[in-house]
Amino acid sequence: MSRTQTRSSNTEALSQTATLAAVREIVGAAHVLVEPADMAGFLEDWTGVYRGDALAVVRPSSAEDVSEVVKICAAAGWAIVPQGGQTGLCGGGLPVAGRASIILSLSRMNAVRSIDLAGRTVIAEAGVVLETLHEKATEHGLVFPLMFGAKGSCTIGGNLATNAGGSNVVRHGNTRELCLGIEAVMPDGTIINALTGLRKDNTGYDLKNLLIGAEGTLGIITAAVFKLSAMPLTRTTGFLSLASLADAPRVLNAMQDRTGGAVEAYEYMPASAVDVICQAFPDTRRPLDSPAETGLFFEVASNRKDDAELDEAGESHLQSLVFETLEELMEDGAISDAMIAQSEQQRLDLWKMRESILEAITENGPAYHMDISLPLAAIADFVGAMDTTVESMGFRPLTVGHLGDGNLHYALSAAEGRDWNTLPLAEAKEEAFALLSRLNGSFSAEHGIGQSKLDLMAKLKQPSQLAAMRAIKGALDPAGLMNPGKFIPDPVEPTGGR
Amino acid sequence: MSRTQTRSSNTEALSQTATLAAVREIVGAAHVLVEPADMAGFLEDWTGVYRGDALAVVRPSSAEDVSEVVKICAAAGWAIVPQGGQTGLCGGGLPVAGRASIILSLSRMNAVRSIDLAGRTVIAEAGVVLETLHEKATEHGLVFPLMFGAKGSCTIGGNLATNAGGSNVVRHGNTRELCLGIEAVMPDGTIINALTGLRKDNTGYDLKNLLIGAEGTLGIITAAVFKLSAMPLTRTTGFLSLASLADAPRVLNAMQDRTGGAVEAYEYMPASAVDVICQAFPDTRRPLDSPAETGLFFEVASNRKDDAELDEAGESHLQSLVFETLEELMEDGAISDAMIAQSEQQRLDLWKMRESILEAITENGPAYHMDISLPLAAIADFVGAMDTTVESMGFRPLTVGHLGDGNLHYALSAAEGRDWNTLPLAEAKEEAFALLSRLNGSFSAEHGIGQSKLDLMAKLKQPSQLAAMRAIKGALDPAGLMNPGKFIPDPVEPTGGR
Repeated sequence: MSRTQTRSSNTEALSQTATLAAVREIVGAAHVLVEPADMAGFLEDWTGVYRGDALAVVRPSSAEDVSEVVKICAAAGWAIVPQGGQTGLCGGGLPVAGRASIILSLSRMNAVRSIDLAGRTVIAEAGVVLETLHEKATEHGLVFPLMFGAKGSCTIGGNLATNAGGSNVVRHGNTRELCLGIEAVMPDGTIINALTGLRKDNTGYDLKNLLIGAEGTLGIITAAVFKLSAMPLTRTTGFLSLASLADAPRVLNAMQDRTGGAVEAYEYMPASAVDVICQAFPDTRRPLDSPAETGLFFEVASNRKDDAELDEAGESHLQSLVFETLEELMEDGAISDAMIAQSEQQRLDLWKMRESILEAITENGPAYHMDISLPLAAIADFVGAMDTTVESMGFRPLTVGHLGDGNLHYALSAAEGRDWNTLPLAEAKEEAFALLSRLNGSFSAEHGIGQSKLDLMAKLKQPSQLAAMRAIKGALDPAGLMNPGKFIPDPVEPTGGR
Repeated sequence: MSRTQTRSSNTEALSQTATLAAVREIVGAAHVLVEPADMAGFLEDWTGVYRGDALAVVRPSSAEDVSEVVKICAAAGWAIVPQGGQTGLCGGGLPVAGRASIILSLSRMNAVRSIDLAGRTVIAEAGVVLETLHEKATEHGLVFPLMFGAKGSCTIGGNLATNAGGSNVVRHGNTRELCLGIEAVMPDGTIINALTGLRKDNTGYDLKNLLIGAEGTLGIITAAVFKLSAMPLTRTTGFLSLASLADAPRVLNAMQDRTGGAVEAYEYMPASAVDVICQAFPDTRRPLDSPAETGLFFEVASNRKDDAELDEAGESHLQSLVFETLEELMEDGAISDAMIAQSEQQRLDLWKMRESILEAITENGPAYHMDISLPLAAIADFVGAMDTTVESMGFRPLTVGHLGDGNLHYALSAAEGRDWNTLPLAEAKEEAFALLSRLNGSFSAEHGIGQSKLDLMAKLKQPSQLAAMRAIKGALDPAGLMNPGKFIPDPVEPTGGR
C-alpha cells in the first residue's frame, strides 16, 4: 500500500466517523447499527440469494429525521438503500457491491397515524407491516384489500416501492390504485407532504405515482394514505375446470356481470400445479375428482346484506348467483366441472393450496421463475406455445397466475428424469421473452426489477422510455445516491443525463 | 429600425418559411393552416376569455407525424401547444403571448383503433370526441364511464391532459384511473408506445401517469388504451334533502354498502343552486316540494340481472335496496325528505337540472368559480364557514359539487341588490384559499391549471413539489418548448433546472 493510499484511507475513515456521528446525532446512537452482528439481519433478504454490505443500518423515526440523514449522506457521497420487510424477490432492498452505502430501515416508522371513517382512508407509515394494517382496518369494520403470502412480514413502504400486486388486484388494483397520497423525502432532502387523502387533485405532475413503483430510486416514501373498503359479508369460493384457457376471459366476464364486479380472486391453477402441491404436501385434497387441465380457483365477495341472505337450503344469494352463472357456462361448454366450497374450512383449504404453490415448486427441485403479464386475450396463446417449446427442451412448466389481471407466474422445472443442470435454460428464456414481447407482454408484472431484472430491462424496455427514465433520475437524483445499481440499467454508453 | 434588426427579421422570416415548408412536407399542405381566417377557430376556446396567436395550426394524422413536427419545431425554437376540443376552462390549449408557437391540433387523430372485448379495453386516438367513444363502447354492449357536460366536443386527449373528472368519478375514477396506457411523443421527438393494455406492468417509472394531467407540458399524448365497463341494466335516481351537509359521507357510505358500491353520482345541489336554475329556466320542476337546504342528487346503477328484476309493484330490486336505505336514514334523522325518479323522463329531468347549473349561474350575472376539493369530512366545515364569511361581504355563494369525491364547484355571485364590481373579491378569494389550505384541500380538483391558476400554483403548491416538478420539466423539455406559460409558474428567481 502506498503512502497516498494510506492517507486517503485515513481521511475516509475520519470522514466516515464524522458522518456516522452526525447520523447518530439525528436518529440516536441506538438506531445506528454498525457492528456486523447487529447488521447481519439487514444484509440479506427472504430469497437467500441477495446479500449486500453497508457502512451502517440507520433506523429513523420520522420524515424529518430521514430528511436530515439524506442530507448528511449526500454530503458524504454515501448511497442510501431504503429497506422494508426484506420480502422482495428481486434484491431491491440490499446494497450493491462497490458503493459506500447505508441501509435506511423504515422499521421504526410503524405507526398507523389516523383513520378517517367518513372518508374511509387510513394514514400509515412506511414501516407498518401489511398484516397490521389489515388488523387496524378490521377493527373499524373495514378492509385494506392488498393481499399476498408475505403479508405478515412485508411493509407498506416496500409494497409502495414495488407497487406490489397479489391475489385480489382484479377487484381492488395494485398498491398504486389503493394509495391516495404519500409523504416522501426527495434526494435533496426536501419533504413532500401529500397525505390529504383527496380523491381529486389536479395541482401538478403526479409525483405520487412517479415514486410508487420506483423502488426507492427517486426518493424515500415515509408514509401514505390508503383507501379502505367495506367489509365483505359473504364470500363464495370455488374451483373450476375450464374447457380451454382461451375461455378464461369469457368465464371471468360472465361472473363479473352476474355479480356486479364482485370477483376478488381468479387464479390459474392447472393440473400440473395441483400435482406439485399434492406431491409436496400429501394431505392436500384435490378440489375436483378428475384432474383439471385448466384449473381455476376463484373467490367472489360481497358487502351487500341481500347477497348474504340465506335461502331455505342455507345457500347465500351470492352463492346462488355464482351457481346459476356456472350452470350456464357448463351448458355452453366453457366449464367442464366445478365445485363450490360448502364450509369455511373448505374455503381455507382452497386458499392454502393456492398459497403453498411457491413452496411446493421449491420442494420439487430447481426452477426458474418468471413474473410476467399479458393482455388477457393473449394468455392462452402464450401458455400453449411456451409449454410446447419448453417441454421439447426437457423442461416441465409449472404455472400459476392471477388470471384476472393477466399475470402469470410461469416457472420452468426439470421434466421427470432430466438433470436441471444440463437443460438449455438460456435458450428457453430467450424464447419466452421473445414470445412475450411479440404478444405485448411485460417481463415484470408485480415483483419489480431490483437487481434481478436489470438485464431484461436493458434488453426489452423501449429505448424512448428508458431515456425518459434516465432523464428523470438524473434530474431528481443527479449524484445517483438513491438505491444505486437497481431498477435502471447502466447505459451502454454514458449519457449526459446521469 | 436599425439595419441589424431588419436583417434579423428577414432571417427569421426565411427560417419561418423553411420551417413551415418542412412541416407541410410531413403533414401535407392542407393540414398546415396559416391564414387568419383558417386559424381563427383554433385561437380561442369555449370560455371566450382566453385567446392566443400562433404561427400555424398543424394537424398531424399519426404519432410519427407528431414526432417529425416536434423535431422540426424544436430545431426552429418554436413552442408547441397541443390542442383538443377547446372545451377547457383554464386556457391550457392556447398559446401565450411572446412565444413563437404552433398549435398542434389532434383533431385528425380521431380513430378508435381497436376494441378488445375479452379484456374490455379500447384504444382511441387523442382526437376522438368523448361522446364518440361512448357510442363505440355502447355498440359493443359496454360503457366508457367518463361523463360531463362537454362530452359532445371535448376530446380524450384533452381529457387525459387535464385528468378530467365529471359526475361519476365516485364509482369509476378520473380519466387517470380509466387509462391503462398511452402512446405519446416526447419533447425530443421520441415516441413512447405503451398501448399494451396490461393490468399489471412494473417495468419502470410510471411515465403514463406523469404525462396524464401534465397539460401537454411534458409531451403529447397521441393515443390511449382505456378500460371499459359493463353496461348498467338498471338505474335508480333521486333527490334527497339532508339534515346537514356533515351527514353526507354517512349517507353515501350507507348507500354504497347496501348496493355494493353502485353509487355513480352523488351531487351536492343546495336550495340556492336549485333556485338559480329555476330562475334561469322557469319550466324546471323542483325535485322536492319544500326547498332542500342541503339538496343531494344521486344515481345508483347496476349491471346485475337480479338488480334489474321488477317486483309486483314494478319496482326494480335495486330501487327497493335504495328505498330501504333511505327509509333507515330518514328514521335516524340523516335525511329529511327524498324522492326517487319514477320514470326515465323524471330521471332525465334531474340530470338536466344538474347539468344546467353552470349556464344558470352565468345567466344570473357575474361570478367567480372555484374548482376545489376537500377531504369528505371537511366539506361541511368549509361550506359552513365560507358561506358565512362571503355572505357578510355581500356575496351570494352558489355551490354545486361532486360530493362523493369531495369536489366542490364553489362560485361567488353578488347578493341581491349588490353591485358585483364593488364587492371585495380579492379578499373573499384570500379567505377561501386560506381556509382551503388549513383544511388540506386542493385549489384545482378537476379543471386543471392552464393559465388561470398559475398564481394559485405559485402561492399554494408545496415548494418541495414545485421544485420536483421544475426538475422533471427541465430534464424532459430542457428548451421549454412544450406548452410554455402554463401549469408551472415561472420561478421567482430562475433556477438551474429551466
